[in-house]
This record gives sequence, C-alpha cells and structure tokens, in this order.
Amino acid sequence: MTPPPDNLSLQNIAVVLVEPQGPLNIGSVCRAMMNFGFSDLRLVNPTADHRAEEARWMAVKAGSLLDRARIFPDLAAALADCQLALGTTRRFGKYREEFFHPDEAARYLLPLTEKGRVALVFGREDKGLLTAELDLCQRFITIPTSDELPSMNLAQAVSLCLYETAKTLGELRGKSHGRKKLASGSVLEGMYSHMKRTLVDIEFLDAQNPEHILRSFRRILGRSGLNDREVRILHGMFRSIDWVNSERRKKLPGE
Amino acid sequence: MTPPPDNLSLQNIAVVLVEPQGPLNIGSVCRAMMNFGFSDLRLVNPTADHRAEEARWMAVKAGSLLDRARIFPDLAAALADCQLALGTTRRFGKYREEFFHPDEAARYLLPLTEKGRVALVFGREDKGLLTAELDLCQRFITIPTSDELPSMNLAQAVSLCLYETAKTLGELRGKSHGRKKLASGSVLEGMYSHMKRTLVDIEFLDAQNPEHILRSFRRILGRSGLNDREVRILHGMFRSIDWVNSERRKKLPGE
Repeated sequence: MTPPPDNLSLQNIAVVLVEPQGPLNIGSVCRAMMNFGFSDLRLVNPTADHRAEEARWMAVKAGSLLDRARIFPDLAAALADCQLALGTTRRFGKYREEFFHPDEAARYLLPLTEKGRVALVFGREDKGLLTAELDLCQRFITIPTSDELPSMNLAQAVSLCLYETAKTLGELRGKSHGRKKLASGSVLEGMYSHMKRTLVDIEFLDAQNPEHILRSFRRILGRSGLNDREVRILHGMFRSIDWVNSERRKKLPGE
Repeated sequence: MTPPPDNLSLQNIAVVLVEPQGPLNIGSVCRAMMNFGFSDLRLVNPTADHRAEEARWMAVKAGSLLDRARIFPDLAAALADCQLALGTTRRFGKYREEFFHPDEAARYLLPLTEKGRVALVFGREDKGLLTAELDLCQRFITIPTSDELPSMNLAQAVSLCLYETAKTLGELRGKSHGRKKLASGSVLEGMYSHMKRTLVDIEFLDAQNPEHILRSFRRILGRSGLNDREVRILHGMFRSIDWVNSERRKKLPGE
C-alpha cells in the first residue's frame, strides 16, 4: 500500500555532522534545518562548541536546535537507530553508480521515512568523511559543482540537501490528490527482492555478485520514483519471467 | 525557438547584492558563485568591506571574485546593462502570480542569457529588498521555506538559486545526471522495440494491445532519463529473457 504522504516525515530525517570545526557553521546548519522543517541534529565528536555565542548568532531563531542537538562519540553510535545513512562526499572511488544528486537522494529517502529513521551525513569542513565513515553509509550524495572550486561551504551543502528534500516532499504532497504517490520503502524493497531472485534464476545476474547490476536498476528506478501501480506492473513482469523459466526447467534432463 | 544550449551562459548572469552588511556573507557568496560557475558579482552600496580578511576567509579559493566585484551606488545603476532582473523576496503583495520558485526561475531566465544579461538580485540580510528596489525587477523569486523560520541566510539563499540555475543548464545540455549524456531517441526506441518483442513473446504483454502496459514502462523510464550504459543493461536483461523463452519453446510439443 502506498503510504499517505502525510506519513512521510522530515522529523524522521536526522542531520548528522561529523567533527564539525566551526561554531558559525553549526549555527548556520540549524537555521537551514528550521528553514526547511527539520529538527533532529546530531553532532559526532564536534571540535567546536555548538553552544558558543557565534553558533547562536548564526542560528538566529533556531537556537533551540543547538540546545537539543545530541552528541555522539563516533558515527556508528550516531547512526544506531537509523535504517539508512546517506553520506555526502566528492570521493567517487569504485561506487560511482551508487551516487545520488540531492534531488535523486530526496526521492529515494522520503518513502523510507514512513517506517523509520534516515540519516543525512556530512563530513568535516576540510576533509569531509573518512573512508571508514563512508563504509557506514549505504548510499552517497554528491552535489554537482564546478571543477574550478568543487568544495562547498558545509552549511550551504546541508542547506541544498534539505531544500531538495523539502521540495520533493512538497511535490509528493501537492500531487497526493492527483495521481501520483510514491511507493513505500517496504513495497520497493519487496519488488527489488523479486527482481533479484528472478534475474539470478535466469542467470542474467551473477549469483555470486548480483548487487553490481542491481544497483544500476536501483538507480534507474530510484530516479523515476515508482508509484504502487508501477511496482505491481514490475512484479507482474517478473512473475511472467518466473513462469517461463519454470517451464524451461521442468524439461531439463534430471529435473 | 529554444536556443542551442551551448549558447546559454552562466557568464551572462549577474549576482547583485544590495547593501550587504556582512563580509562573511559576501565571501560566502563568492565561494558559492565559483562552486556553480558564476563570476559576475555586483555590490550595491555595501555597508561591509568586501575585501576584508573575513570575506577572503569565507571565499576560500574564490577570492578573485571579491577583487573583480563591481560597486554601484544604487540598484538602478547596477542593472543598467541587464535586460531582466529577478528580485528575491518573501513579500508577495499583489504580484503573487509573478513569483517563481528557484527552479522555475532558472528555466525562465536561462534561455534569455543567449541574447543578453540577466540579474539575480538579493536584498539586505535583515530587511531584504525595499519596495522601490522590487519595482526595478520584472520578476520575483521566492524560496519556499517553513513558516517557523522563513528567513534564510543570505549566502545560502544565493547558493540555492545558483545551484538550481546550474542544474537546469545541465539538464538543458542533456547531462541531467551530471556524469553521462542521456541516450538518444533512436537508441531508446531500439530498446523499447526489444522490450515489446520480448514481453509479447513471454505473454506478459497482450499481443493484441501491447501498448497499454508499454506506455507505463515508457513513463517510468522516461522520468528517470536513461544513459547509454543503462540502455545496454536493459538490452542484456531482455536477451536473457529471450534465451530462457527460446529454451522453453524448443521443448514444446510440435516445435
């Protein structure tokens, strides 16, 4: 069942800053969070005092978020109650296919907020997230910037991601009386399981490493934002393939 | 007529700050401008020193934009060579219909940059743009924010508008996912033909009326915007299905 968009909630999205160094930035992040309706701020081993005068000055009327911010010793602890973590980075490495732009990330993560908590993870001002921290994230966000100066101000990067998420939520809600509601995270995961089983069975996906190609399908379908009817159509297609394959197997020698 | 996207240019978009009060903000705006490929900064009667240490510190590697910024005594002078000015404001007044969100503004202004100069105008940190200044703008941009704290940090507001503009330019140039160009129409049609043949063969699509469900696939994949590699993956999947189905048929009585 498609969740009513009212069940999608920005309250279930945590903004996690790993070792932020500047109180101005932390205050500025709070202001952006309140601008776009977010409230769960988590600081991992901050090297700046988030309650300093400068932080409050930049937070303007969002000082309450500074007071309610939770502090964690490491990223794993900060993510303990999150079902999904999206890490922001400009380091592509071998996982290029798993990178979302902020708008794609928003379409991917919002349906998951119906059932649980999702984290947006931002690294240090100077060094971003370390490899060991990226390993704790399941998906990655990169903001497309110019080669001339690719590195963004931390608070601006947070602001862009929150803006895209709030904007996407607005689009989903705006269309809720129209035709399109996104399928929920569990409905999507059910479809991806079916897809994986079917495509391994017909030997299109390598049984040893099905995830590689499957990630491309997740990206394609994540970008398009499936509704319930479309998920049913995909299930139907995989059922037809399952049937053809079972007919083939019946006739194999020894089966 | 849509102009050829290569003639559209971010160089023809001026970023105008009216009476900015904080050197940190001015520096931060320069960084955002270079992040997204903009270079024409205009300051109207600034009350802060835009070459101060703090401005350079926030500009990081975009300090050259501070040096090249042009200073004007009033907004009319700053807009003298611009064919269109878009003013950012949260004051709606009677002109509600002329308000764009940043993404709509980007789609509106980019085609105009082929022929001339366009200005994005941002007001003071505390009071925004005055009525007399808004009167010099032909269209207005408002960033949808929460009622709880509608007012954004100046540099973040600039950053959002520039991000949307650069993103829209990328989409017009056919790089909507940044890294790879979208597959051409003929490549896509080849894939849809294969899809149709395969799905009719396995009897998932009704041979009498395959178009109905096929249209849903066209909508899903059309929204996501496939690149060449993704089209090859889909061809590969259909080839695997074709193979399974041909094996099944070999064993049918009478075939």
